[in-house]
Amino acid sequence: MIKVENKFSNRMVAYYFDASFSFIDTLADKHNCILLTDKNIAELYQSKFSSYKTIVIEAGEAFKQQYTVDTIIQQLIELGADRKTTLVGIGGGVVTDITGYVASVYMRGIDFAFVPTTILAMVDAAIGGKNGIDVGVYKNMVGTINQPKYLLYDFSFLETLPNEQWINGFAEIIKHACIKDALLFQELENNTLDVYKTNKDVLVDLIKKNATLKTDVVVKDEYETSERKLLNFGHTFGHAIENLYQLPHGHAISIGMVIAAKISEEINNLYSDEKERLTQLLQKYGLPIQLNFDKEKVLSILKMDKKRVKEEIDFILLNNIGEAVIMPISLTQVEDLVNQIL
Amino acid sequence: MIKVENKFSNRMVAYYFDASFSFIDTLADKHNCILLTDKNIAELYQSKFSSYKTIVIEAGEAFKQQYTVDTIIQQLIELGADRKTTLVGIGGGVVTDITGYVASVYMRGIDFAFVPTTILAMVDAAIGGKNGIDVGVYKNMVGTINQPKYLLYDFSFLETLPNEQWINGFAEIIKHACIKDALLFQELENNTLDVYKTNKDVLVDLIKKNATLKTDVVVKDEYETSERKLLNFGHTFGHAIENLYQLPHGHAISIGMVIAAKISEEINNLYSDEKERLTQLLQKYGLPIQLNFDKEKVLSILKMDKKRVKEEIDFILLNNIGEAVIMPISLTQVEDLVNQIL
Repeated sequence: MIKVENKFSNRMVAYYFDASFSFIDTLADKHNCILLTDKNIAELYQSKFSSYKTIVIEAGEAFKQQYTVDTIIQQLIELGADRKTTLVGIGGGVVTDITGYVASVYMRGIDFAFVPTTILAMVDAAIGGKNGIDVGVYKNMVGTINQPKYLLYDFSFLETLPNEQWINGFAEIIKHACIKDALLFQELENNTLDVYKTNKDVLVDLIKKNATLKTDVVVKDEYETSERKLLNFGHTFGHAIENLYQLPHGHAISIGMVIAAKISEEINNLYSDEKERLTQLLQKYGLPIQLNFDKEKVLSILKMDKKRVKEEIDFILLNNIGEAVIMPISLTQVEDLVNQIL
Repeated sequence: MIKVENKFSNRMVAYYFDASFSFIDTLADKHNCILLTDKNIAELYQSKFSSYKTIVIEAGEAFKQQYTVDTIIQQLIELGADRKTTLVGIGGGVVTDITGYVASVYMRGIDFAFVPTTILAMVDAAIGGKNGIDVGVYKNMVGTINQPKYLLYDFSFLETLPNEQWINGFAEIIKHACIKDALLFQELENNTLDVYKTNKDVLVDLIKKNATLKTDVVVKDEYETSERKLLNFGHTFGHAIENLYQLPHGHAISIGMVIAAKISEEINNLYSDEKERLTQLLQKYGLPIQLNFDKEKVLSILKMDKKRVKEEIDFILLNNIGEAVIMPISLTQVEDLVNQIL
C-alpha cells in the first residue's frame, strides 16, 4: 500500500493506493461508519460489507436525483447517524457524487470517504471534492465542493467491472491526455484497452498517473476560477446530451470532446490531423464519436449549463493534443457553430 | 445608515443597519438578483418587489422542508439563475434558512444576502451562516454553515409585524441575556414589550446589541466546536417539541429554556430565584413557560438531535443569569431528569 497526502484548501486528503478494502477499519471507528453503495456492488460484495451498517441505492445516473438523497437521509436518521459518523461511498461516480453531497448537508456536514470501484471514479469522479445531483436533465445542478477524508483504492474491485465501464473510464483518461499530457496520449495510442485490462502493473501506473494529474489541477484551483475549468473539456456538449439521451457518461464526454475538437479546429487553429488523432483514439478504446441529436433541445439545455454566465459559456478548446485553453463563447456563436459544423 | 463589517472564516459579511430596502440595488447587479420571500411579505410589499425577479414560498415552519427547496430550484432554473446570481432572502427565519441553503447548493454555491423582516431573524436567524431545512419533525437536520454576503436591516418592515411575531423574537433576546448578558436581562426586566414597540430608538439599540452579541459568539467559533454551542440554550427540548406540537419557534424555545433552567437547578446549582426571574421575564413578554408533552415521543425525537454524539448530548445549562456552561449529559440521565422534574 502507498499513502499519498494531498493538501486542499480546507483539509488534507489521504489517498491509499493498492490498499485492501478492510483497511477502512483502521481509518474510522467501524461502529460509527456507514457504507453507501449501489445494488450492483452490494450484490457482488455482500460478504465484504456484511459487518457494516450499509445503505444501498439503485444503480445508474438516472437515480442521481433528489429523491435518492431523500431516502438516504431517512436511512441515516433511522441508523442513528450522528455528527461523528463517517459515510463511506463505495462505487462509481454516481455513488461518490451522492455520498459527498449527502455527507456535506446531513447535520450540516459529516465526514465522508470514497472507495472508488470503477476506472472513471478512480481517475476522475472521486477526486477533487465536486459532488452533487442532477435536476431532471440538468447535470450536477445542485451540490457542493467539499473534500473527502480519504480515498481508498482497492484494485481488486476492477475484477468484476463490466467491459462497458472500462470503456467509460477511458473517456476521462483520454480527456486528461488531451488537455495536459501529450506523452500520455501517445502511450494510449501505443496500447489497447486489452493491454490495460490484462497487465495490472501497467493499469495501476495509468490510474495513479491520472489520479495525480487531476489532483494537481484541482489543488491549484479548487473552486474552479481558472485552471480547473480545463477539466471540463468535452463536458459542455457532453452534459447537454448525457441525460437527454441517457448515454453512459464516458460516451457523452467522448462525443462532447469530438465536438469541442471540431470547434477548436474552426476557431482555435487546431490542426485537422490532431482532431483526427483524437477521434481515432476514442474509437480505438470503443468510444462513440458522433450522435445525431436534436440541436434545438441540446442548445436549450446548454443554456442552463453551470458554466454559463449571462450570455457566455467558458468553452475548453484544444491548442494541440496535450494543451487546452479556456475560451468564452457567446451563446449566439455556439448556436452558429452548431449549425455550421455539426 | 451604519455599515459594520464582520470577519467570518471564509468571508467578510457587511451589516447595513437602518438602511432602506432599495439600497440592495447598490450591492449587486439588479438584473442578476433574485428575491426569495414568503406569501405574507410578498402580499404586504408587492410594490417594493415589483421590479425584481421574485420567488415566493408558503409562509411558516411547516414548509421548511425539502419539497420547498425543490420548487425553488426549479424556479431558479426557469429564471435563468447563473453562478453570478445573488439570491436575496427577505423574511423571517424560515425564509433566511431556506435562502442560505438553496444558495449554498444551487450550482454548487451562489452568493446570497438577507433582509430580515422579523425581530427573530434580525437578532438571531439571519446571523451566523447556519442554514437548512427540517426533515419531518427533525429540526434543521439538513443544511450547511455558509455566510451571506450582507445583511440589510430596514426597520420599516417591523411596522407590519404581527404581535405574536414580536413575542417570538423576544424569546431569542431573552436567551442571549441568559447566556451572556446579565445587564441586558435587567434592561428587559425594567422594560416591557410595549416600550420596545413604541420607541424606535430603544428598539434599534436592542436589535443592534443582540445582533452584535450573536455575531461575536459566532465569529469566535463559526463551526460550533465550543462557545457557539451556548446559543443552543433552550434549543434541545425546544427543537424536540417545536415541530411535534407545531409551536412558534419562540414559544418552543421559551419552554425549552424553562426546562433547561430546571435541569440547571437540579444538577448545576442554579439558584431557584434565578430560575424564577427567568420564568417571570418570559411571561412578562407573553411567552409560555410550560407544555404537557408526551415524554416518550419527545425523548425519542431528542435522541436524533444534531447535538447528540453517540449516547451523549451537550446540554447548555445556566450558572447564573448571564452565564451559561456546556454540559454533556447521557441520554439515560436526560430521561431520568425528565421523569423526575417535569
